[in-house]
Amino acid sequence: MKIEVIENVLKYNKDQADKNRKLFKDSKLLVLNLLSSPGAGKTSLVLETIKRLKGKKNIGVIEGDISSTYDAEKIGKLTDNVIQINTGGSCHLNASMIEQAVSKLKIKSLDLLIIENVGNLICPSGFDLGEDYKIVMSSVSEGDDKPVKYPPVFIKSNLIILNKMDLMEVSDFNQDFFENKVRELNSDSEIIKLSCKTGFGLEKWISWVLDHCKVHNNQ
Amino acid sequence: MKIEVIENVLKYNKDQADKNRKLFKDSKLLVLNLLSSPGAGKTSLVLETIKRLKGKKNIGVIEGDISSTYDAEKIGKLTDNVIQINTGGSCHLNASMIEQAVSKLKIKSLDLLIIENVGNLICPSGFDLGEDYKIVMSSVSEGDDKPVKYPPVFIKSNLIILNKMDLMEVSDFNQDFFENKVRELNSDSEIIKLSCKTGFGLEKWISWVLDHCKVHNNQ
Repeated sequence: MKIEVIENVLKYNKDQADKNRKLFKDSKLLVLNLLSSPGAGKTSLVLETIKRLKGKKNIGVIEGDISSTYDAEKIGKLTDNVIQINTGGSCHLNASMIEQAVSKLKIKSLDLLIIENVGNLICPSGFDLGEDYKIVMSSVSEGDDKPVKYPPVFIKSNLIILNKMDLMEVSDFNQDFFENKVRELNSDSEIIKLSCKTGFGLEKWISWVLDHCKVHNNQ
Repeated sequence: MKIEVIENVLKYNKDQADKNRKLFKDSKLLVLNLLSSPGAGKTSLVLETIKRLKGKKNIGVIEGDISSTYDAEKIGKLTDNVIQINTGGSCHLNASMIEQAVSKLKIKSLDLLIIENVGNLICPSGFDLGEDYKIVMSSVSEGDDKPVKYPPVFIKSNLIILNKMDLMEVSDFNQDFFENKVRELNSDSEIIKLSCKTGFGLEKWISWVLDHCKVHNNQ
């Protein structure tokens, strides 16, 4: 009984995600679903991305939080194309929430939509939003064992970002250990190391975004 | 229909938590449920607590993770009284998991049981395990906005720990902002600032534990 209900929820979400995916494809929009623990630096990356692509790409942002408009207010200083979703306690975004948020954005004018999921390294990875790519962001201060302890999100992500590289010197983070553990789970996805604070590695991230915008728009 | 099922799950969990609570009380055991984001430093705090209370208090530990025995192996170097629960994907511990784990510990010989919940700042706070106290650990590297964005766990916790104080100098964490936001949600619970890395503030934490063991055992 319980399992049946859960299956129905996931089936319903998948159907809505497929509708979102079709809309995104028809709109020639690259859609990224950004996942991480609380405080890993998702919002900082979104802010840096908007700043660095200003005048080159029109970017929309959906901010997911269980409450507050704190992050959307930060993004709102750089662009009007931002919508805050408050899940009201739910630990992840789902495809229906994205459908509603997208209806309030002028997506025909956008090149890129970044969805900043609720800060949670577990639940969001199970819910397809219709995105092109899932991106997991880990951070040096969280420690090098995250792939060992939270495998699903590393398995399912198309890109792995390691943020807060500026803290490497004051931490005992073992980069080889982290990379090897990621590779055991996911041999294909690129790992980009960066620091939103110092700017280190951000040019690689921006290149990744531009490369995938181009690929997407040529389809 | 969906709501009914969820209510049944929570009711079932509450009933089991009440059974756990009675067992813990009969065993004169202080039980702490430690909650945080991934990588905030829960395991480091458990390790420091065992080291500093060696010969004074017998401590049992239940480690909750979605997979791996990584943390239990670290704890296992200091004590045999450790059980790893792998939730197999579930984002929180529940009272039935605790019942099973406790049956494998010699709890009559213990003074203190620390339950390290799955690293997740959202879901675990909704599940009563039968503990005496919920403790939320935030860390400087996660940023000062966690109470704003994840209110429920700060509302429900009986103690707030701020870890990684050693990183304060290299961060833009605003301690007044953090404390004010915690106080808006929870005016009663103590805030202990510490660093598991340098040892700063750990004597306050140890005093808190000893004070509550004593109160508990005098009941």
